[in-house]
Amino acid sequence: MSTAWTSRYALRTKGIKGSAIRELLKITQRPEVISFAGGLPAPEVFPVERFQEACHKVLTANGSLALQYGATEGYEPLREMIAQNMARYGIRANVDNVLITSGSQQALDLIGKLLINSGDRVLVEAPTYLGALQAFNVYGVEYVSVPIDEDGLRTDSLEGSLRSGPKFMYILPNFQNPGGTTLAEGRRHELVLLADKYGIPIVEDDPYGQLRYEGEHLPPLIVIDRENLRRDSGYQIGNVIYLSTFSKTLAPGIRLGWIVAPPDVISKFVQLKQGADLHTSTFTQYVAYEVARDGFLDEHVKRIRSVYRERRDVMLHALSELFPPEATWTHPKGGLFVWITLPEGVDCEKLFRAALAENVAFVPGDSFYPRNGHPPRAHMRLNFSNAQPEQIREGIRRLSTAVKTQLHELHATSV
Amino acid sequence: MSTAWTSRYALRTKGIKGSAIRELLKITQRPEVISFAGGLPAPEVFPVERFQEACHKVLTANGSLALQYGATEGYEPLREMIAQNMARYGIRANVDNVLITSGSQQALDLIGKLLINSGDRVLVEAPTYLGALQAFNVYGVEYVSVPIDEDGLRTDSLEGSLRSGPKFMYILPNFQNPGGTTLAEGRRHELVLLADKYGIPIVEDDPYGQLRYEGEHLPPLIVIDRENLRRDSGYQIGNVIYLSTFSKTLAPGIRLGWIVAPPDVISKFVQLKQGADLHTSTFTQYVAYEVARDGFLDEHVKRIRSVYRERRDVMLHALSELFPPEATWTHPKGGLFVWITLPEGVDCEKLFRAALAENVAFVPGDSFYPRNGHPPRAHMRLNFSNAQPEQIREGIRRLSTAVKTQLHELHATSV
Repeated sequence: MSTAWTSRYALRTKGIKGSAIRELLKITQRPEVISFAGGLPAPEVFPVERFQEACHKVLTANGSLALQYGATEGYEPLREMIAQNMARYGIRANVDNVLITSGSQQALDLIGKLLINSGDRVLVEAPTYLGALQAFNVYGVEYVSVPIDEDGLRTDSLEGSLRSGPKFMYILPNFQNPGGTTLAEGRRHELVLLADKYGIPIVEDDPYGQLRYEGEHLPPLIVIDRENLRRDSGYQIGNVIYLSTFSKTLAPGIRLGWIVAPPDVISKFVQLKQGADLHTSTFTQYVAYEVARDGFLDEHVKRIRSVYRERRDVMLHALSELFPPEATWTHPKGGLFVWITLPEGVDCEKLFRAALAENVAFVPGDSFYPRNGHPPRAHMRLNFSNAQPEQIREGIRRLSTAVKTQLHELHATSV
Repeated sequence: MSTAWTSRYALRTKGIKGSAIRELLKITQRPEVISFAGGLPAPEVFPVERFQEACHKVLTANGSLALQYGATEGYEPLREMIAQNMARYGIRANVDNVLITSGSQQALDLIGKLLINSGDRVLVEAPTYLGALQAFNVYGVEYVSVPIDEDGLRTDSLEGSLRSGPKFMYILPNFQNPGGTTLAEGRRHELVLLADKYGIPIVEDDPYGQLRYEGEHLPPLIVIDRENLRRDSGYQIGNVIYLSTFSKTLAPGIRLGWIVAPPDVISKFVQLKQGADLHTSTFTQYVAYEVARDGFLDEHVKRIRSVYRERRDVMLHALSELFPPEATWTHPKGGLFVWITLPEGVDCEKLFRAALAENVAFVPGDSFYPRNGHPPRAHMRLNFSNAQPEQIREGIRRLSTAVKTQLHELHATSV
């Protein structure tokens, strides 16, 4: 019966492509494999006891509300808390600007649903978050991609692409996934002005913004955009939709993210979300509110930062000690990922198989480019948040062995 | 700024229509209103203490897994439990046939995503579940509708509609929402045979199947379909995708539903679900498993049945005592809803406003028909699960006043 359905009912794929990450995660779950492939938080930092207290309190005080259907917009005290928390980063939002989503991934799906008609173009960074490509692909999207460098999106290459009329731009300004790069402040201003000039909205995805391990926090695009709007009478409207999540600061298993947008856009998302899942779990929203409240979230984020900063440092140190000089990598100021550019001629798939033979895993860079958008050089994405420091060191050692063997073979063939 | 976005970026509506139910729920939350409008379970039956124990146990034993990212397919022990529970209704499924969804509503969205291309037709019962229409509308669907009577879908009117080539049929066989009707056994067999004859798959939505208050359980369409497949060599393939949920048996606030389908179809849904929300909350899945296990769910469903049976009886009794003889209504053998057909000439919107003035609410029947598919007579959907028995009696009294006043005005004008 296995493919009968697919053929009898001619199931279309609508841009469905197996997620490399997901399939890899399955292979790399063997205990002997050190995996840099996922994007998983460290389970050691989950505030399990605080969750215990929160569940107890929610069920005792509000059991019949927390287990009942809820408003599509989300649990109001949680939306208020989110609005207040964002204020310290300069994001001026009130409750009507915030919609709770079932993880940030659902926000990407709702954006695709609302904005993308078959054949529409979307401008993305190259490379970009694989999950965004998956979310948008089903709506029949075409991509325009603009390269990044250590300072993020190359805004000097942007204007030509904007003239091709993309429906929106999808940008990860902080500690980009997979690049680990951060959009420089000057480029943020340029990007926001260009968005207004060409009337192309920006979707600003900021899952890692709070996880900065060095340097100063830079203003979010949505803040620059609103300031321009206040100051400049020629400026049209606020052009930025902002996304974030509790997945990296509390826990991904509760699937809680949010969208910040003007109220008329939020109301469209609410209608679409009704059809998509009615609303996000009332229970996890009540619990997350109880966990995060009274300043707990801030203190907790400080702890995460110190754990992840150490892991990043261990990985960067091991890379410079063990990796061949022909490879280069980004120096992420925050987030979860290091992005490695491999020497010319390295075959990434071969390297991946060689690495698995050494019991270490990563995600090959090709996954993070739109269809037919392969990069000229091979890349690897390495996650540093999930493995313990000693595992990170050992994993990089194994990986360097695989890389060196590849290079050796390469030189041997070219001789 | 309020409509600037919508106009600057020409936000398409893609069939978005405000949900009457959702908007009504807001109006009817005033404490003095007795609302028959929602489809809410009785909060008195939520097993809050069992949830307390389950949360405690899950966080103590499995905190770091339950709060982490999980597999898109869902938590395997929960999928196994669901497969086992369904076996007693004759549904033969194993773990590979079960995908956990973020409520049944997400299953409907995934079905739309997989099966509907713009302009495709979907065959629905008239009336049908409003949330399904909302889920399908965004994919640019057209509807073919077939009327129901007290025995469910009028299979005698079906064959002509099947010849028009719908992509699939969406059917609620048990205690239909909003009709409260149950598809008769003979019609189930006819329906399944016709589906095979014309090669049109059936989406069988069964959120209420376990909530039967009288009579014998009837075989699900998926069971009849598989039996035909086993018996009849001319029969093509299994043509039924089956949906159900914990929303009515445990609690809707945990947002847990599931899809049963052949493995090749499940694997397509998994890929689409990755892009839609990565996976359903790991935490609520672990908790639901702990709540439901060891026979608790079965015992609990018995309790719900007895509470809801009483409420249904109170509503039916009050209706026959107080409602004018020109109105008729269904006699639901289970589920949450009674469907009332109003006397000719009654204006449903007027009646709705009159009812609100009497502090009682219902959902006007028009909401349950596809666009441009208004019924010849006015209808009301009444929910009997959420209000206490004495409130139900009082609510029907108020409603009968509103109906009688409308009838009186109608006769006065016609004289």
